[in-house]
Amino acid sequence: MAANSKFAMATHIMTLIAHASSSKEVEKDSHGLVRSELIAGSVNTNPVVVRRIVSILAKAGLVISHQGKGGGLELAKSPSQISLLDIYNALGEEPIFAVNPNLPNPACEVSVRMPEVLDPVFQSAQESLQANLKKTKLSDLLKQI
Amino acid sequence: MAANSKFAMATHIMTLIAHASSSKEVEKDSHGLVRSELIAGSVNTNPVVVRRIVSILAKAGLVISHQGKGGGLELAKSPSQISLLDIYNALGEEPIFAVNPNLPNPACEVSVRMPEVLDPVFQSAQESLQANLKKTKLSDLLKQI
Repeated sequence: MAANSKFAMATHIMTLIAHASSSKEVEKDSHGLVRSELIAGSVNTNPVVVRRIVSILAKAGLVISHQGKGGGLELAKSPSQISLLDIYNALGEEPIFAVNPNLPNPACEVSVRMPEVLDPVFQSAQESLQANLKKTKLSDLLKQI
Repeated sequence: MAANSKFAMATHIMTLIAHASSSKEVEKDSHGLVRSELIAGSVNTNPVVVRRIVSILAKAGLVISHQGKGGGLELAKSPSQISLLDIYNALGEEPIFAVNPNLPNPACEVSVRMPEVLDPVFQSAQESLQANLKKTKLSDLLKQI
């Protein structure tokens, strides 16, 4: 359950692209595309990390990456159509809780039952987290910039 | 956001102690205490891992550990008074989501705003997870063994 900042970075990247598209002050090309150098500078991290996350977001259909000279990034949908759950799901992270990776002990009635007893509990917890993330849209964050 | 089985193991240990206390068939001493060897066998993991988790649960006031010959473990409260949130909180894990560990870029208005914009979002998500865990009591799991 170690805290992970990948979700924060992905959300930052999405917010930046959304903000840049609607701003006249941000450096972008004539088509309104956001250059990856701008993102790396904003997230203040290794460009390799940024490219990896952008690639994941593109595969999930959240951003469109235009290659080559004059290329850059744009959102694939409007910020009001993208929830934080979409970003979370795009990252494809493992569920928060995992069952005991060790085999149940067949001689213990508690041990043999635990995976089946815990599975719905973990699923329900995961779903409550995801339902919460679904409530916030990228447009909600954009308003606060 | 890597899945972590520590919570599953801690919940398993708590369920086992609760079950053993209410069962005539489980090996325990004349005072109804559960021996740590039984726990290690049930969780099917290294006794060091079990002892570490038991120590955390004891410090949080969820189990009482009786040392020495004839010693063992018992719950500090009834299973209906212990929620899965109590167990989760006892483990003291980091929050699920962390903000970007890199310093904001002062030249970027999105970058400087992101920590403040994301903080309530992450807190709300964390709270929804915890509210969900609070709904399930140890006694609910015990009924399913």
